[in-house]
Amino acid sequence: MQVSVLKQLRLFNQINADLKRIENELIKFVKNSEYPLITDSATHLLAAGGKRLRPAFALLSGKIYGYQIEKLMPIAMALELIHMASLVHDDVVDASATRRGKPTVRANWGNTISMATGDYLLAKSLGLIAMINNPQVSRILAETSVQMSQGEIQQIRASFDVNQSIKQYYYRIKRKTALLISASCKLGALVSGAPKREIWALGAYGHSLGIAFQIVDDILDLTADQQVLGKPIGGDLRQGIMTLPMIIALKTSEQKSRLRALLAKVDKTEDEILEAIELIKQTKGIEESRRLVDRYIKKAKNYLLELPASPTRNALADLAEFVGERKY
Amino acid sequence: MQVSVLKQLRLFNQINADLKRIENELIKFVKNSEYPLITDSATHLLAAGGKRLRPAFALLSGKIYGYQIEKLMPIAMALELIHMASLVHDDVVDASATRRGKPTVRANWGNTISMATGDYLLAKSLGLIAMINNPQVSRILAETSVQMSQGEIQQIRASFDVNQSIKQYYYRIKRKTALLISASCKLGALVSGAPKREIWALGAYGHSLGIAFQIVDDILDLTADQQVLGKPIGGDLRQGIMTLPMIIALKTSEQKSRLRALLAKVDKTEDEILEAIELIKQTKGIEESRRLVDRYIKKAKNYLLELPASPTRNALADLAEFVGERKY
Repeated sequence: MQVSVLKQLRLFNQINADLKRIENELIKFVKNSEYPLITDSATHLLAAGGKRLRPAFALLSGKIYGYQIEKLMPIAMALELIHMASLVHDDVVDASATRRGKPTVRANWGNTISMATGDYLLAKSLGLIAMINNPQVSRILAETSVQMSQGEIQQIRASFDVNQSIKQYYYRIKRKTALLISASCKLGALVSGAPKREIWALGAYGHSLGIAFQIVDDILDLTADQQVLGKPIGGDLRQGIMTLPMIIALKTSEQKSRLRALLAKVDKTEDEILEAIELIKQTKGIEESRRLVDRYIKKAKNYLLELPASPTRNALADLAEFVGERKY
Repeated sequence: MQVSVLKQLRLFNQINADLKRIENELIKFVKNSEYPLITDSATHLLAAGGKRLRPAFALLSGKIYGYQIEKLMPIAMALELIHMASLVHDDVVDASATRRGKPTVRANWGNTISMATGDYLLAKSLGLIAMINNPQVSRILAETSVQMSQGEIQQIRASFDVNQSIKQYYYRIKRKTALLISASCKLGALVSGAPKREIWALGAYGHSLGIAFQIVDDILDLTADQQVLGKPIGGDLRQGIMTLPMIIALKTSEQKSRLRALLAKVDKTEDEILEAIELIKQTKGIEESRRLVDRYIKKAKNYLLELPASPTRNALADLAEFVGERKY
């Protein structure tokens, strides 16, 4: 459902055919004739979809300048592979967190296979980066990868930690989400011959948008219609991920100590999850977070003013609106 | 102790000072001012040492041609970081294997931190590869990384599997050990301006040597003096890693079914480990493996004949002898 809604958006019209090509190439690229198991797990991950936002950002950024799909394709693919690898390694972290009390044999084997699949996807992205053979591209992706691995460590340390600050929260989501989206915009522009100042502006746009995107994720995990979201809400609570609405609620709730106890608890019952959501909703946590989303979306759109006016610039502004308003 | 013995070897005289520089640079390079935890775990890994064989192979291969330490340094560092990352991810795999029955909270958290530390080291190596900015170097390292991740998957699948073939064994050790040593030799030669044919010969030397190196590891894990080895023997048995002597023993033992049962057992007692070692020693498993080591060492030395005669070529031949005869 997610992909089809995105496809309906006017803003994707200009890149839809190329996104489809990237999709097909990705599926071919992760196949491994020697090793069916790894093909299966990687293909499964790909097929599970996702919005392919990072390739879309790279292509749209390229559209403003000298768009050449042959140059953009390996970058868009590498970005998506890095994203998928980070997702699957995050799953290991989060699964360990939720299963702290009772890890199972299967869970553990699943974790090692997930780790190895992530390593494989990362290694495959290296091949693409080598093919691109542009030192600036390599440097940006290397620097992003280092920061992302720091976000991973922070995620391990911060889970179930009810004392973490908003600053620590931003540290984490910058590394887990914003930097790769920012890199997608920058790289799309860079290989399409954008001027330096505009590469910077697109990077700043992607960064602000990425922060907003993550905060929206946090809000949806507490408020979404489960049917629309496609998964049960409260996932962050279960996995011990402290999100922005939670951190604000922890500071302002009238039942602070009860909320603290609930959020810090490792194996929450379903009733406790519903109670925690209720307590958070009684605070201004969600409203405040919503306000911050709007601020970051506005910031993102402002950076676009550095770019020449064009239909694609408008599409990027629409995309920012969409991220701010999405319901899934 | 390990490092000091290597240092005493004549063959390291010509590169000792540069190896020392690489050591210092590595320690500086993995430091992370923002994130002390990751500095600690990465520095701990580095300090735990290892023989730095991959940097040594790169430098020695470079010595035969236009040796420039500035060109070789980032490659040697990247090779060691990739090696360390693979070690720490292997530990996660092997720990899951041995702890299949009873994973603990701490073990699980340890695993996720290990995974993240490996990701960090890999990301740092990307930065070096970007800096080197040589498409051939990038391609060789990317291809090696893909293959290494396949070895990782194979290691997960094959643990405690008493039915695996010698062919599967070679598949695994090629990817886990031989390819990165081979790449070390090739890359050292490549950036030092070696002719194509000789880059190939050095790669083939490294490959054969890597296979021999791994088989020696397998043998030592069953036969070494624990004091000299620096760790308890029988580690492979505990972790369910089927080594060459075991695979041969499984085919030829007079007490095949007892040996199968012991090797397939997940939580072996110390007595069972000693019994398994005893049963393996009663077969020709170790002798046969030893014979194969000698054959691969000979093969490795033969490839060196493709290179111009020089003191460094002799040193590489000595290094092959050393790998064949090492006691730790």
